[in-house]
Amino acid sequence: MGLIVQKFGGSSVANAERVNHVAEIITNTYKAGNQVVVVLSAQGDTTDDLIEKANEINPKASKREMDMLLSTGEQISVALMAMAIGRMGFPVVSLTGWQVGMETSSHYGNARIKKVSGTRIQEELDRNKIVLVCGFQGVNKYDDVTTLGRGGSDTTAVALAVALKADLCQIYTDVDGVYTADPRVIKNARKLDEITHDEMLELATLGAKVLHNRSVEMAKTYNMNLEVLSSFTGKPGTIVKEDAKLEKTHVSGVACDKNIARIALVGLQDKPGIAYRIFSMLAKEKINVDIILQSIGRGNTKDISFTVEKDNLAEAARILEEKKHLIGFDHMNTTDTISKVSIVGAGMANNSGVAALMFEALYEANINIHMISTSEIKVSVLIDEEDSEKAMQVVHDKFFNIMQ
Amino acid sequence: MGLIVQKFGGSSVANAERVNHVAEIITNTYKAGNQVVVVLSAQGDTTDDLIEKANEINPKASKREMDMLLSTGEQISVALMAMAIGRMGFPVVSLTGWQVGMETSSHYGNARIKKVSGTRIQEELDRNKIVLVCGFQGVNKYDDVTTLGRGGSDTTAVALAVALKADLCQIYTDVDGVYTADPRVIKNARKLDEITHDEMLELATLGAKVLHNRSVEMAKTYNMNLEVLSSFTGKPGTIVKEDAKLEKTHVSGVACDKNIARIALVGLQDKPGIAYRIFSMLAKEKINVDIILQSIGRGNTKDISFTVEKDNLAEAARILEEKKHLIGFDHMNTTDTISKVSIVGAGMANNSGVAALMFEALYEANINIHMISTSEIKVSVLIDEEDSEKAMQVVHDKFFNIMQ
Repeated sequence: MGLIVQKFGGSSVANAERVNHVAEIITNTYKAGNQVVVVLSAQGDTTDDLIEKANEINPKASKREMDMLLSTGEQISVALMAMAIGRMGFPVVSLTGWQVGMETSSHYGNARIKKVSGTRIQEELDRNKIVLVCGFQGVNKYDDVTTLGRGGSDTTAVALAVALKADLCQIYTDVDGVYTADPRVIKNARKLDEITHDEMLELATLGAKVLHNRSVEMAKTYNMNLEVLSSFTGKPGTIVKEDAKLEKTHVSGVACDKNIARIALVGLQDKPGIAYRIFSMLAKEKINVDIILQSIGRGNTKDISFTVEKDNLAEAARILEEKKHLIGFDHMNTTDTISKVSIVGAGMANNSGVAALMFEALYEANINIHMISTSEIKVSVLIDEEDSEKAMQVVHDKFFNIMQ
Repeated sequence: MGLIVQKFGGSSVANAERVNHVAEIITNTYKAGNQVVVVLSAQGDTTDDLIEKANEINPKASKREMDMLLSTGEQISVALMAMAIGRMGFPVVSLTGWQVGMETSSHYGNARIKKVSGTRIQEELDRNKIVLVCGFQGVNKYDDVTTLGRGGSDTTAVALAVALKADLCQIYTDVDGVYTADPRVIKNARKLDEITHDEMLELATLGAKVLHNRSVEMAKTYNMNLEVLSSFTGKPGTIVKEDAKLEKTHVSGVACDKNIARIALVGLQDKPGIAYRIFSMLAKEKINVDIILQSIGRGNTKDISFTVEKDNLAEAARILEEKKHLIGFDHMNTTDTISKVSIVGAGMANNSGVAALMFEALYEANINIHMISTSEIKVSVLIDEEDSEKAMQVVHDKFFNIMQ
């Protein structure tokens, strides 16, 4: 018994049948004696329909007006869910982003949560109501509607859980937890019972796509326990918490990210300020850079290689080519037929053999490594995109099958 | 040049083509040097889709949640219109009911406007923006979303025009003005250039269905000039204003209302309090009564006849039959195959021949009159429903064709 925040995605409220099913999950939680706050996304087809209508009228519509338009999707979801729960005879109320005081920055389409006033929700909870809240949306200081961008509803749920000091924040998805690898690729992937926020962050970043990064970061900062579980199976999911039990192997999961491209600048002057110049140019154009490797200088030149998202490759290459005279490099190589395979585990830092074991698995499978990047809790390698599935499988087998 | 409030209904924003067409009307008004505030209804199909979704989940959904759901329709309309106007290169902003401070009562589904804060709109006008506002919606004192019920967007437009001290409030519809009779029924009906608020009120009440009553009442109270015109033709419409020029005939229009039924209570005691008892019982059940006629007492009994909307007939008859012992009548007759034909004109009060002329027209056409009711500016008669069209035509001819 306690205060539980539950979040359901667009596919969980896609039609009347799904809405009624989710209403069962919510009211069962309520009947068990909990206070329940629920965050909902827009029905999948609603958002698509709205975007289509907008594109028909103005493909370059202002972001403010897109937010005004798209935020109706979550409002429809919460109203319909309130009707379903009302029909089952439970007290319920639906609330929009502005009604719950979800204050955000003014970056329409990609706003950041600045403050959450839990007052209205607390009042409704005190009246014993199930409270449904529109995910993905807020208001800025001008009282204009904003949306939070990708994964926004996860972030809404965690922000509310933190503001209301919830005991648990459950994120319902179409998978039943966090796996040692993507179960659609690696058939013998195992579901994890527990995982730390840091591990979850690395997995999210690395393309596991279970939870959105911003929501996990926020949960870590405020030490909020998350549970990732399926609205379809009804089984316990994976708990994300600070003191998660470590896996015996020190590795929690294997992830693969194919949305990646590499740029290499060859023959740079070996003098201070070059790296600053390159990456500030890219940052100014909002191009995120992931792995950066700088070669040891040879004579008076050096090379710098780095990865960007595939979509940003052409733009990044254009900018660098334009500024070639300012940066001063000999030539540039780019490739987008690569992928990044990573192992993640909080126990890795104290276990030097882990990286070696990964490299061994790849060597045995005759897979060439282009770049390596390591952190306290992960090891990432860049390989040819065509080797992705094989690499995932052999690395997963090395850690999760052979050693058990 | 001045401040103009324009209202467009659901059919005016039904699809991208219509939205772009209305955007032309709005921007032409702006280009002519006016400040422009626009009130929009939901796209017709949007509201229908939402109601269908709600019915599928809960046919008896709470009115609060229905308002939460349906208010998204207008939000979609204003966002799409802002995109269309933005594409044409004009400065524009869309605003919801809560953003413009449209404070209403708490009667979900049928709320009344209590106060309008024009501050936000004025700020946007000062920035030279075209301001688009969601019709039909507001917020109550709990910060919950309300809707205004039938004709709500007309009322929104007039309320904003009053609050902003607009020079004119234009109501765009699918007809190009107010006619001397419904032009779909009476082929030679004429469009009126001007009409008074009182005449418009009587015509609206009597089934002319051009403007909603509440909007005209508000315009009359605050002496706001309205213009009813078509978004299709681009022609001048009918101006509704206090000092409208009177028609030569003293009659402005002929209207017909078929949504009417009659109840007669026969053999009531001729003593005080009977009428009070009957009509307070009906009022308690929210049944509106229109024409009431009481016969002169014969001996110690009298009869009372009155009309209600067709939908309310069964309910009204049930209530009266249940309370027969309290009211004390001999028997009750009901009929729903009647209709009400009325002539309206501000010049009528000082022209005793007008009613006689109407009765003459009906007599010449051999149409029997069941009940008569008169006010300062109208004469209504109840006739058999099957005589409706003929009655409309002969009365219209009497006033508008023969006399001109």
